[in-house]
Amino acid sequence: MLFRSVVLYDRATGDRDAIGAQLAAERGLTLIKPYDEPQVIAGQGTCGLEIAEQAAELGVDRAEVLIPCGGGGLTSGVALALEAKAPGLRVRPVEPEGFDDVARSLQSGRIEKNDRLTGSLCDAIITPSPGDLTFPIMQRLCGPGLVVTEEEALRAMALAFTRLKIVIEPGGAVALAAALFHPADTAGDTVIAVASGGNADSGLFRQALETHA
Amino acid sequence: MLFRSVVLYDRATGDRDAIGAQLAAERGLTLIKPYDEPQVIAGQGTCGLEIAEQAAELGVDRAEVLIPCGGGGLTSGVALALEAKAPGLRVRPVEPEGFDDVARSLQSGRIEKNDRLTGSLCDAIITPSPGDLTFPIMQRLCGPGLVVTEEEALRAMALAFTRLKIVIEPGGAVALAAALFHPADTAGDTVIAVASGGNADSGLFRQALETHA
Repeated sequence: MLFRSVVLYDRATGDRDAIGAQLAAERGLTLIKPYDEPQVIAGQGTCGLEIAEQAAELGVDRAEVLIPCGGGGLTSGVALALEAKAPGLRVRPVEPEGFDDVARSLQSGRIEKNDRLTGSLCDAIITPSPGDLTFPIMQRLCGPGLVVTEEEALRAMALAFTRLKIVIEPGGAVALAAALFHPADTAGDTVIAVASGGNADSGLFRQALETHA
Repeated sequence: MLFRSVVLYDRATGDRDAIGAQLAAERGLTLIKPYDEPQVIAGQGTCGLEIAEQAAELGVDRAEVLIPCGGGGLTSGVALALEAKAPGLRVRPVEPEGFDDVARSLQSGRIEKNDRLTGSLCDAIITPSPGDLTFPIMQRLCGPGLVVTEEEALRAMALAFTRLKIVIEPGGAVALAAALFHPADTAGDTVIAVASGGNADSGLFRQALETHA
């Protein structure tokens, strides 16, 4: 039998890990976490395989690879794929200002938490802290984290509309924003930025175009 | 020496073919027309090669292929490519209502003109008539033309934003609009629609999202 239901919670006050664990226990379900899960990390790593393939086609063997980073699933997956396929490409996690738990964790050497989980337009990549599985991978393979402002993320969204003809949500635009507006923070002369995903609602997107396009 | 300048004209009253011919004569330049030019048609045909490749990967050997059509460069190029690589795929030109010179030309068997060249949001594909080179190709290879309203083009733009995460201009959305809103006008159960291009200014795009997303 297939059950399919969406359980909503308040991200400011609720604990989605606890809710997930409770539902799994009550209903005998298998919990699949959004990032701290080996198969999820492996799946996200296919983005790294694509980057390695495209970089090789272009003759790029050294570059910084900027990734929008929440709990680190995409970031650690891409880092593992590049370790195997393109070891000269170094991953740099990118986060919004005020929610830079991964950057701070990489700096301190232990898992740091965000003070708050609300109040950012980049909500898709706002997580409490890096995962128990993703953090050691990022620690071993990634360079220091980068941080961009919300304003920079909106400008990157508008530029992606105007120049790339793609729709990105604010959280999905932070790596592009870092590449565009923080060139001094990356090493070398080649930067690869991942734009992911595009779940911007139309009101927010109109606002970004109105103020930044 | 490289000259690069943009000469503006009024599309309601001016004749861009005459202006181009005059500039070429005065300055000794080579005129490259936007659609009635063998190399342009061949270049646009690479879109047809991609369609043939992707259709083969999916095991699709019969389908209707809807193309946004102005002067017929993209349409005839894709038709030639499919004739060679995927002859079971039939091209159908798609135009905005009131500017259906190609559909009428295919129906009457001779080159028909549009009454006017302004007043459509789909301005990128508003041309006076099919080209001398493109029309015979379309006549030989294409099925009847399809026509969509401006309203349908805007709805397709908004759906492309919401679902496909891509930016299309109104003229570039007419084939998607035909696929979505005129299913009875196509034969068989497989429809391929080309979305091209994305030069929507941000004001128009915001308006399309406000009214249709």
